[in-house]
Amino acid sequence: MNFQIEQAVEILSQTPAVLNSLLGNLSGDWTKSDENSDGWSPFDVVGHFIHGEETDWIPRAEIILAQGENPTFEPFDRFAQFEKSKGKTLGELLETFADLRRKNLERLRQMKLTPDQLKLKGIHPELGEVNLEQLLATWVVHDLTHIRQIVTVLAHKYSENVGVWKEYLSILK
Amino acid sequence: MNFQIEQAVEILSQTPAVLNSLLGNLSGDWTKSDENSDGWSPFDVVGHFIHGEETDWIPRAEIILAQGENPTFEPFDRFAQFEKSKGKTLGELLETFADLRRKNLERLRQMKLTPDQLKLKGIHPELGEVNLEQLLATWVVHDLTHIRQIVTVLAHKYSENVGVWKEYLSILK
Repeated sequence: MNFQIEQAVEILSQTPAVLNSLLGNLSGDWTKSDENSDGWSPFDVVGHFIHGEETDWIPRAEIILAQGENPTFEPFDRFAQFEKSKGKTLGELLETFADLRRKNLERLRQMKLTPDQLKLKGIHPELGEVNLEQLLATWVVHDLTHIRQIVTVLAHKYSENVGVWKEYLSILK
Repeated sequence: MNFQIEQAVEILSQTPAVLNSLLGNLSGDWTKSDENSDGWSPFDVVGHFIHGEETDWIPRAEIILAQGENPTFEPFDRFAQFEKSKGKTLGELLETFADLRRKNLERLRQMKLTPDQLKLKGIHPELGEVNLEQLLATWVVHDLTHIRQIVTVLAHKYSENVGVWKEYLSILK
């Protein structure tokens, strides 16, 4: 599929509504961490989305567009949410994320990116040379990755309750 | 997690809204089949959800509750949607699904199931003996499985656009 900003925004703009639909009405048994799991809970994932809005996607786009002497991104802290989300409710996190995402998409629109600008490059601290189009496509796929993670974690809560049907349900494997 | 009908309904009642948020505003490039893929498109998955509402979950619950002489379920046709969805738009399918799900959850509520009834058994044509609680838990996990499938298919549309970030994105593997 060819990259078009408008189509990327179709996904990016819906993610807050997807998370609200998925998580907004769930009781704590669904959304809290399993005591015996070292995986992320839905609560942790929403915190991770927030940290991405604050430090990853648009800040990195701005580094690329500036084309300064050192276009290397700050490393992204994949675990920042464990500290930052403390004391918050899931509802608060969902609201914060929706607000940040709306503002970041407004900043993206104001950039009025041209096809030439999409090919401008920055340096990822681990992966090396990347361009703006790849960054924006990754923003989209990153959203989908973590929605997938949330539904997988939810499904696993019922991994024993489904009995012999487990055999048919690849999400539980 | 112990099974409680109210908690299962928390997920089941939100699935139409999740699908609407995920898919309702997407252009055809996102939702149509890839010509070179034999996988299901989001359009196909929504058709599959509809067929489940019509022939699987509540009809099977009624077979179990009836405790008749032959409590064996009709086999479920996992491919019915390829014929049934022909000529429909994705918007029509989403609306049909939301309507059927709402009615089925109303039927579930009217069953006023007791803990004893949740242990009643039926016969799955391939898997053998199952009970009503397992059927309802599977309904939930089946929803989550196919939401997962949709986001995975969407992500794969950008599998090349992300460039070297592909290495970090497990959803693309």
